[in-house]
Amino acid sequence: MSEIIASYQVFGRPGTLEKKAEGIALGLTIGSWTDLPLLDQEQLKKHKGRVVSVQEFYDDEHPNRYGEVKAEVKVAYPVVNFSADLPAILTTVFGKLSLDGEVKLQDLAFDEEYLRNFPGPRFGIKGIRSLIDVYNRPLTMSIFKGVIGRDIEFLKEQLKQQALGGVDLVKDDEILFDNPLTPFTERIIQGKKILQNVYEETGHRTLYAVNLTGRTSELRGKARLAKDLGADALLFNVHTYGLDALQELAEDNQVDLPLMAHPAFSGSFTSSHFYGLSAALALGKLVRIAGADFSLFPSPYGSVAMEKSHTLCIAKSLTEENVLQETFPVPSAGIHPGLVPQLLHDFGIDSVMNAGGGVHGHPDGAAGGGRAFRQAVSAAINGETLADAAENCPELGTAISLWGGK
Amino acid sequence: MSEIIASYQVFGRPGTLEKKAEGIALGLTIGSWTDLPLLDQEQLKKHKGRVVSVQEFYDDEHPNRYGEVKAEVKVAYPVVNFSADLPAILTTVFGKLSLDGEVKLQDLAFDEEYLRNFPGPRFGIKGIRSLIDVYNRPLTMSIFKGVIGRDIEFLKEQLKQQALGGVDLVKDDEILFDNPLTPFTERIIQGKKILQNVYEETGHRTLYAVNLTGRTSELRGKARLAKDLGADALLFNVHTYGLDALQELAEDNQVDLPLMAHPAFSGSFTSSHFYGLSAALALGKLVRIAGADFSLFPSPYGSVAMEKSHTLCIAKSLTEENVLQETFPVPSAGIHPGLVPQLLHDFGIDSVMNAGGGVHGHPDGAAGGGRAFRQAVSAAINGETLADAAENCPELGTAISLWGGK
Repeated sequence: MSEIIASYQVFGRPGTLEKKAEGIALGLTIGSWTDLPLLDQEQLKKHKGRVVSVQEFYDDEHPNRYGEVKAEVKVAYPVVNFSADLPAILTTVFGKLSLDGEVKLQDLAFDEEYLRNFPGPRFGIKGIRSLIDVYNRPLTMSIFKGVIGRDIEFLKEQLKQQALGGVDLVKDDEILFDNPLTPFTERIIQGKKILQNVYEETGHRTLYAVNLTGRTSELRGKARLAKDLGADALLFNVHTYGLDALQELAEDNQVDLPLMAHPAFSGSFTSSHFYGLSAALALGKLVRIAGADFSLFPSPYGSVAMEKSHTLCIAKSLTEENVLQETFPVPSAGIHPGLVPQLLHDFGIDSVMNAGGGVHGHPDGAAGGGRAFRQAVSAAINGETLADAAENCPELGTAISLWGGK
Repeated sequence: MSEIIASYQVFGRPGTLEKKAEGIALGLTIGSWTDLPLLDQEQLKKHKGRVVSVQEFYDDEHPNRYGEVKAEVKVAYPVVNFSADLPAILTTVFGKLSLDGEVKLQDLAFDEEYLRNFPGPRFGIKGIRSLIDVYNRPLTMSIFKGVIGRDIEFLKEQLKQQALGGVDLVKDDEILFDNPLTPFTERIIQGKKILQNVYEETGHRTLYAVNLTGRTSELRGKARLAKDLGADALLFNVHTYGLDALQELAEDNQVDLPLMAHPAFSGSFTSSHFYGLSAALALGKLVRIAGADFSLFPSPYGSVAMEKSHTLCIAKSLTEENVLQETFPVPSAGIHPGLVPQLLHDFGIDSVMNAGGGVHGHPDGAAGGGRAFRQAVSAAINGETLADAAENCPELGTAISLWGGK
């Protein structure tokens, strides 16, 4: 019988947690057990939640309080209890329970067969690499900056400068919605022209991820239109729509575009140590299952920082082997060329290095910033120090003078 | 110029919070200001976020820590910056910011004109009252219990018993999804027959809210089908789908059914004192804007309890006067007939009293529990003590002997 195993972090007085776990396993499935007639027990057996393990922590790594200990509780839920969609799964394993005091959903374990209910990334790391024909280094990405209230000419120029710098991807600002100054369709059409011009001029092809926004029922239609207009990829604020909306985009053969999951709003339910979901689950496993080809999350280096261990867990969830394709980890915010060796060390070759200010803030503009970024990647891949590489790479030299880096 | 004003709870060293507020106002709109040429400033003025107020708290009610004070920061966002949908609004006011340390979104203030972009409840408290023809008392509701793994006969009998007790509404268990034993359509069709029989037998009409589940793009179709099959109302786990999915149901003239927003999963982003959204915003204002006719939330009395002040703020958000219809507050969990006077005192006549165990656990079964519940409501409305009323109401007497109540 197929099950999903949920791991929770809970608190309680030592010795009480078995009972708490049993309460979860029953309360979120068949409701009661010992009071049931034997005939009912027979009928309901295959629907009953099951406590897999209860581990109380007494070590220094898990400091406890108010006479309570921290524990990891694992509960198995028979998949026969819910439809094979993420809203049903989340409602079952963390619907009512999310409101029941200090309990955090750390992980969901799916067996291989069940995982096949979900699309996972359509392109995945392999598909994206073959799309941009880059195999032996991390990808580089930069972000539009200060585009609210600007017209299409401003965006075109910014896109051109970024592409001239040689980044592999450019993404929209996640707060740029469909608007009269820079309509969704116009951004795609004009963006495509700009990037084609840069390609003809330099031989370098940059992909542009346009922000897919609007009403839920219009998303797939807009995404298909984007595909028809020649869009390269879609940015999507999945956590303000729900994971299932992402999944429907990933499953749609007429959309057929790389999907970039933005973490906007996710801090609402990942930031607390006591409540919500682990970042690895929300920004790692679940967005991969739902079909994101890229998952953005706060890097551990910047001002909007996430704990390093959490970012590494996200990246692991996105790339560990399973039946689904892999999702590119995109640690974001606070990134500049000087951090490239650190990023390579922490996230490896199969990641996207994504900079905003670290590209636009370069004294030679976004084009110079992009070049510095790519130079840093080449150096890091070749095991060269940035300082050494900078001797032949003026833009990199300028960047590390400004922002640091060795 | 129309604006949305967001109120945040933040922490910081005394005197630094003005700067932090300015950073939010610029960072989430046009990005920078003082560095901009005058011409650009002129162009971008109407897109610039504005710090409305920064209030630092030094009183005992807001204890501070690590040399930091708590503060309320209000920032106004020009509505011209985003499309008029909740995903765009939430991404703007709390997208990146949700990931930026200890900041909690407490409220969003919309002006009247802007609020008209949203449907609000289709029926509202008034419409629901006229639908059930009950005007001068709180409504009563009970919940299916232990239905996972049960067949349609079990549900039919449970529905019948609940209806015989005289409750106004019965709702599905939120963890009951579409399944072969009790398919969505079958629940509607069979439920309707049962309730018609009870009506013919007793003259009392109970409405049944069936759980609308499944894939996002199928929701409206299933909801329309439910309407065609004669469903009374829909229960919806809005927080695993996103508020916009609820709004699209509310806006659909072919759906045209009362919508009941369940709080499943919302604890993920409302429970922390430091992160996420206030319960009043998430379970109050936003579900009302999106079109819920009922909003369920944990009562302050039960084992899955919410702080009383929070529940009162939710109820206020749902019922305070504005251009939208009102939403019925449904404090849930831990409710039994003995709590009715307290519920009436705390939530007033325009609320729904919702019990699970407090109906089903009655020694005379769900029918007896429902009767006790209704008897308690009549007593409370008439200013009678439950103990006095119990003299002529045996079911109520049994209930208060078992669960307490005066």
